[in-house]
Amino acid sequence: MRRAWVLATGTELALGQSVDTNSPWLAARLAALGVRTERHVVVADDLAALRDVLREATRGCDIVVLTGGLGPTEDDLTRQALADVAEVPLELHPPSLEHLRAFFAARGRRMPERNVVQAMVPRGAQVLPNTCGTAPGLRVRLGRADCFALPGVPFEMYAMFEREVAPALRSAAGGAVLLFRRLHTFGLGESDVGQRLADLMQPGRNPTVGTTAQHGVIVVRLYASARSESEAQQRLDETEAEIRQRLGTIIFGTEDETLAAAVGKLLLGTGATLSTAESCTGGLIGKLLTDVPGSSAYYVGGAVSYANEVKTALLGVPNELLERYGAVSEPVARAMAEGAAARLGTSHAVAVTGIAGPTGGTPQKPVGLVYIGLHSPGRTEGYEYRFGSDYPRDVIRLRAAHTALNLLRLKLLETQGSAPARRMPDTCR
Amino acid sequence: MRRAWVLATGTELALGQSVDTNSPWLAARLAALGVRTERHVVVADDLAALRDVLREATRGCDIVVLTGGLGPTEDDLTRQALADVAEVPLELHPPSLEHLRAFFAARGRRMPERNVVQAMVPRGAQVLPNTCGTAPGLRVRLGRADCFALPGVPFEMYAMFEREVAPALRSAAGGAVLLFRRLHTFGLGESDVGQRLADLMQPGRNPTVGTTAQHGVIVVRLYASARSESEAQQRLDETEAEIRQRLGTIIFGTEDETLAAAVGKLLLGTGATLSTAESCTGGLIGKLLTDVPGSSAYYVGGAVSYANEVKTALLGVPNELLERYGAVSEPVARAMAEGAAARLGTSHAVAVTGIAGPTGGTPQKPVGLVYIGLHSPGRTEGYEYRFGSDYPRDVIRLRAAHTALNLLRLKLLETQGSAPARRMPDTCR
Repeated sequence: MRRAWVLATGTELALGQSVDTNSPWLAARLAALGVRTERHVVVADDLAALRDVLREATRGCDIVVLTGGLGPTEDDLTRQALADVAEVPLELHPPSLEHLRAFFAARGRRMPERNVVQAMVPRGAQVLPNTCGTAPGLRVRLGRADCFALPGVPFEMYAMFEREVAPALRSAAGGAVLLFRRLHTFGLGESDVGQRLADLMQPGRNPTVGTTAQHGVIVVRLYASARSESEAQQRLDETEAEIRQRLGTIIFGTEDETLAAAVGKLLLGTGATLSTAESCTGGLIGKLLTDVPGSSAYYVGGAVSYANEVKTALLGVPNELLERYGAVSEPVARAMAEGAAARLGTSHAVAVTGIAGPTGGTPQKPVGLVYIGLHSPGRTEGYEYRFGSDYPRDVIRLRAAHTALNLLRLKLLETQGSAPARRMPDTCR
Repeated sequence: MRRAWVLATGTELALGQSVDTNSPWLAARLAALGVRTERHVVVADDLAALRDVLREATRGCDIVVLTGGLGPTEDDLTRQALADVAEVPLELHPPSLEHLRAFFAARGRRMPERNVVQAMVPRGAQVLPNTCGTAPGLRVRLGRADCFALPGVPFEMYAMFEREVAPALRSAAGGAVLLFRRLHTFGLGESDVGQRLADLMQPGRNPTVGTTAQHGVIVVRLYASARSESEAQQRLDETEAEIRQRLGTIIFGTEDETLAAAVGKLLLGTGATLSTAESCTGGLIGKLLTDVPGSSAYYVGGAVSYANEVKTALLGVPNELLERYGAVSEPVARAMAEGAAARLGTSHAVAVTGIAGPTGGTPQKPVGLVYIGLHSPGRTEGYEYRFGSDYPRDVIRLRAAHTALNLLRLKLLETQGSAPARRMPDTCR
């Protein structure tokens, strides 16, 4: 199996000001292409250090993937380091300069003179076009290593890897693979999920099974190695089937599927439509729903009713309800959901009102107290959650949004006859 | 200034299954203690590779901090690698064995025989007690480098670093420090910012100045090293003042301050209030505004008007406007902002309507086309942006949200008399 090093450049990374998420992404993608990453190196923006690392890398492995340092400023040194180690000069690459000028022109701007440097490439290097940014990538042979230099901006790097690097590596892979799969769950804590899967999580098993937790979503990770993709896929399929049998409807998606996407899948094609009424989440649920391309097929919008007057003006929540129970209460959550559905003419609606903190809590209504209203045809239900008053604001908000989307998901499953009707417990790791 | 490498071991890290957050944490803590981290290396659980990296590290720097590989299982190789590189045998350390037995006893368990290996230390090494786990840490002199081996479990590592490593480094620092500062800008591309700061970004300068770009926000990072904290602060102050003079109002905040927080600061205490009307951003602007604790003092909420009927029902956008110009148009953006301000009784309102993609674009109205409406007392303005039809959906949405918040920020600055009234260009990188 071919061996790779992943190099990330950036003083902000070396000094710990930013977390390097590019390298793990690259390592995971390389594995899927039959390349085992043995080392990641993060190095400051320093030409001598960058040259040293490149020389070590090209002695130690077959493939080097480098990210960052292709920008237009003084601290972008990747081009120069590659040229130095290859012992060739930098030369202007006219098609890249044209791409740069066109990129700026399409945005109605003149290209700053500074950016010309992005069209300079080591003599003999292959230029990798950047379809969503200015910096072209580079492919250079250094000793026995095939070296790919990609931009540091994540979405530019992802796109260039898929278009330029993956096809080159796939054609040379010879079949062996490490494949990953992720199953996303919501509704049980990590230790409960772990307990149900304990025997599958024993070390040395193939596929390996592990769990990670984030904001109430417990991700079950499977990792299979095999001599061929089909063999690895089959192993993953068998273990996934076993896990699905044990975890049931708490599994809401695979790979990059979000709770909002799972809800969308259930709504799509049924004629059902959705609106939102958000107080403490302030637009987050709408944001999550509309992260999903095509969500306009079922999601019409809603109200961000942060202030009480907005709950009344946009959602018709009766004043006496607000006065009698307070804005953070189950009756108000229900009235918000009903108001959204009625005013916006949707079959379903979710509403959230709560105290996200860090201030605003009282002994009766502490930080972390959240009410969720759920309207479905002919019925409006209210739910109370306590997410822990020591949680930070953003954690409480995301937990509340996820919980609301999950309640809706279970309701839709129940209506479609494929899930038991039961109240899911609050989850806290 | 002393120079460090940070090493993290773990096959799951090398293969990209987990993101290494220990190394950035260590680098940031080291900087505060006057130690500059020049390189991070993540290496798989492989004895030969670990020895190689340790040898390279001890040639390249003064301090090595290693995390992980101190557990009781077969793939925990840090002890052995340290002993091999130091050319000494591993020996049983009786106090550590006692600690291990006591640790298990306190939890009502007998220590598994496997764990004895955690009490084996390279001859001559200093043992660093673990106050919250089983694995003791190690301090070993390798060549000229002072090498600290810490557990990989984050909370154990944090505690051991603070108790054992920080005091040792502080007493050797003689007051020297490395301090950071970040200035956030919006409104110019990275190359334009770089051009204005080119001389300050020359390598070797102190403070060092660098830039990074994310979603239109260009962050200017300053790192100052000095013999004392006050000297470093003074250097940062001087360079910050110089940068502020050159960049002016495009600087919106420092450290963790967001555009939404900058807007909040300008609204707070003026009596001005804000509402939002979001189509393609689907609640994202509301989410960003309400990320800021205390935002209820000025932000009342708004409408997520994803569907046309919601633009009419909640915001009173006239049907004939939608029919004549289409939902994605400047007149509709203005009507949305006016509708939000009128219906919710706020002094200011921002509205966004656009095509976030990946589908829905036409030659006349391509993906990335966004109109922003901005209402301020007595005035409603409309702006057109083209964010690039090749950008992913989430990038276009975040870029649109940031641009809207920045327009509002500049309007508020202008009203408060501290900024020139000018239209900011779209920014890309």
